[in-house]
Amino acid sequence: MSVTYELVKKCSKTGARAGRLHTPHGTFDTPIFMPVGTQATVKAMSPDELKDMGAGIILSNTYHLYLRPGHELVAEAGGLHKFMNWDRGILTDSGGFQVFSLGALRKITEEGVAFRSHIDGSKHFLSPEKATQVQMALGSDIIMAFDECVPFPAEHDYARESTERTTRWAERCRQTHTRADQALFGIVQGGMYKDLRSMSAKDLVSLDFPGYAVGGLSVGEPKPLMYEMLEHTVPLLPEKKPRYLMGVGTPDCLVEGVMHGIDMFDCVFPTRVARNGTVMTNWGRLVVKNAEYARDFRPLDDKCSCYACRNFSRAYIRHLFKTDEIFGLRLTTIHNLHFLLNFMREMRTAILEDRFLDFRQGFLAQYNR
Amino acid sequence: MSVTYELVKKCSKTGARAGRLHTPHGTFDTPIFMPVGTQATVKAMSPDELKDMGAGIILSNTYHLYLRPGHELVAEAGGLHKFMNWDRGILTDSGGFQVFSLGALRKITEEGVAFRSHIDGSKHFLSPEKATQVQMALGSDIIMAFDECVPFPAEHDYARESTERTTRWAERCRQTHTRADQALFGIVQGGMYKDLRSMSAKDLVSLDFPGYAVGGLSVGEPKPLMYEMLEHTVPLLPEKKPRYLMGVGTPDCLVEGVMHGIDMFDCVFPTRVARNGTVMTNWGRLVVKNAEYARDFRPLDDKCSCYACRNFSRAYIRHLFKTDEIFGLRLTTIHNLHFLLNFMREMRTAILEDRFLDFRQGFLAQYNR
Repeated sequence: MSVTYELVKKCSKTGARAGRLHTPHGTFDTPIFMPVGTQATVKAMSPDELKDMGAGIILSNTYHLYLRPGHELVAEAGGLHKFMNWDRGILTDSGGFQVFSLGALRKITEEGVAFRSHIDGSKHFLSPEKATQVQMALGSDIIMAFDECVPFPAEHDYARESTERTTRWAERCRQTHTRADQALFGIVQGGMYKDLRSMSAKDLVSLDFPGYAVGGLSVGEPKPLMYEMLEHTVPLLPEKKPRYLMGVGTPDCLVEGVMHGIDMFDCVFPTRVARNGTVMTNWGRLVVKNAEYARDFRPLDDKCSCYACRNFSRAYIRHLFKTDEIFGLRLTTIHNLHFLLNFMREMRTAILEDRFLDFRQGFLAQYNR
Repeated sequence: MSVTYELVKKCSKTGARAGRLHTPHGTFDTPIFMPVGTQATVKAMSPDELKDMGAGIILSNTYHLYLRPGHELVAEAGGLHKFMNWDRGILTDSGGFQVFSLGALRKITEEGVAFRSHIDGSKHFLSPEKATQVQMALGSDIIMAFDECVPFPAEHDYARESTERTTRWAERCRQTHTRADQALFGIVQGGMYKDLRSMSAKDLVSLDFPGYAVGGLSVGEPKPLMYEMLEHTVPLLPEKKPRYLMGVGTPDCLVEGVMHGIDMFDCVFPTRVARNGTVMTNWGRLVVKNAEYARDFRPLDDKCSCYACRNFSRAYIRHLFKTDEIFGLRLTTIHNLHFLLNFMREMRTAILEDRFLDFRQGFLAQYNR
C-alpha cells in the first residue's frame, strides 16, 4: 500500500495518538498540520522555507489546478511534485468542497456537479470519476474521494441523502482509481447528525480505504458541536488507518482534534490571517499592524525561533504592512506556519511522554482568543 | 575616512576600472550594482536572499523613510541596518529626486523644498540641512547631498541656476554632516549641457567629497546623449574617489557606464519589471506571462545559476503569474537581481583580465532589446 499509518504511542487518558505516515515521498510524524498550497504554491512561501520549518505534507486543490494550469499540463511537467519543486508529501482534495461553494454557479446530480468557473464563467463538469482522474494526473501522494460537504445547518433528510450519495460517489472513486503510488482516502460526512455520521463511517469503512477524513466540520457550527461530532465519529474509524480532519487549523481546534484521535489537519487560516497582518502566538493572536507596535522592537513572539522572530521586530514588520511591502506578509506567513508546525511537534512530544492532557490544559489556560 | 575607494585595475583601452569600496559595513567589489530597497526592504526579497546572490550595497530612500516609518523611529531601532536586519552596505539618496518628482505638490526656494506627502497630503519641508540630518539618523554608510535633478529637457538658463543651487546646497549638506562613520557624496548636475557639467564637477570637486555621483541622467534623454554626458563628465572627477551613476540599471547602459569609468549603479528597473513578469537574460528580455511559455518546461535562462533557474520552469512561473501568486514575482525578482549582480561580476573579471572591450562587444552583439 502506498500510504500507511504506523501507530507509535497512544495517550493513556485521551484518544490522542502519535504516529508516522509513510508515503512515496517520505515518512512524516503525526499528528501533522499540512500547509495549504491551493494553486501549487503555499502562498508567499518557497519550498525551501517550508522545508526549513519542517513541513512534511502540503495540501493542494484539484478544483484550482484543474482550471489553471490544467491537470494535463501538470502531468506533462512530470506531476505536481516536479512542477512545483516539492519532493515531500502532497495531498490533494477532490474539488468537491470548492465546486459546492460556488453556490448558484453549480448544479448537483447523481452523476456529478456541473459548474461554471469562478474565473471566466466557462462550463465544466466534475464527477467522482473525473475528480479521481484529475488527481491521478496530478500525482499527489494522497487523493480525496469526491464528496459533498453537507452545509450547516442542514435538515436531516437533506443530510441523509447527501451523505448516502457521498458514499456512492466514494465507491465510484475507488473503482476509477488505479495508481498504486497514491492513496485514495474516503470522507465521512453526515452533517451534525450522529446517526448519519455512524452510517457514513460504517459504509466507508466497509469500502476499506487506506485512510479516512472527517469532512463537513468547521463549516460554521459552534465549536462544542464540532467536538461532539468528533468524539462520536473518530472511534468508528479503524485504529490502523490515518484520520484527517479537514479545514481545521486554529490552535484550540487542533488541540481538541488531536485529543479526539485525529492525525492530520489542514487549513488556510494561518496563511490567510498572516497576509492580513495577524500572527499566532502561544497566548493568542497579535495584529501587528496595530499602532501599539509602531515602536515595539521586540520580536513577534519572544519564545519563537522562526526566521521572522530571530531577525525582525514588530516595529519593522508593522512598517512593512503599513507600506504594503511583500516581505511583511512573507514574515508573518513564515511565523504562523512555523508556529503551527512547532505546536504539532509539541503535542506529539507530549503524547510520547504521556502528558498530553497536561499540555492541553496548560495551553488552554494561557490561550485567550 | 569612512568610505574609501581602492583602484585595483584600469582597462588599457577604455575608462573602465575595477576597484573596491571600503565601508563601515564591509568591502565591496566595483563596479557594483545596488539593488533598490526604497522602503527599507528590497521589494519581495529577504536580506538572506540578497546575500546569497552576493549583493553588497543596497539603496534606500530618504523621502520614503522620512514619511514612513519616520527617521526618528529608525534611529530608535538602532539605525537602518539594524531596523531591516541588513549588515552590509546601505546608500541612501537625499530625497531630492522624489520631492522634485511630486510636481505640483512641491515648491522650490533657495532654502529648500516645501512639499505635500504623496500618501496623505500632509505638509513637509526638506532642505539640505534636513535631508542630511534625516540621513544621519538613518545611519546609512553613504549619504547623498540634497540636489535638484535638472529635468529633461531644460533651458540652459534654468539648468544653470538649478545646478548652481545644487552646489550651494551641497556645501550646506557638508556643513551639516558630522557623522564620521558615514560618507557624504556630492552629485554632479548640469542637465545635458557640457559647460554646466564642467562647472558642477569643478565646484563639487573643490568641496572635496569622498565620492561623486553623476545625477540627472537616465531622465528621458536619448541614450547616446547620456553616454556623451558621461564621456564628458567622468574624466572631470578625481580618480581616487568612487563614481556613482544614479538610476541606471539596464544591461546596455551598465556596460556603457562601466566603459566610461563608473563604479556604482542603482535602478528599480530589474525589480520593477520582475514584478510585472519580465526577466532579463543575456539575449534580452523574456515576458514569462506570455502564452508561448505555458508548456515550456525549461528554466528562465538555461545559463543562469540563480535559485529560480535551478529549481523552476517557465511554465510554473507563468502559472504563478497567471494566478497572481506572490511566489512568482519572488522568483523573477531573484532572477533579475542575480542576473545583474552576475553581469557586474563578469564585467569586473573582464576588466581584471584586460578584455573589457571584447566583453562589451560580445554582449552588444547578442543583446537584442
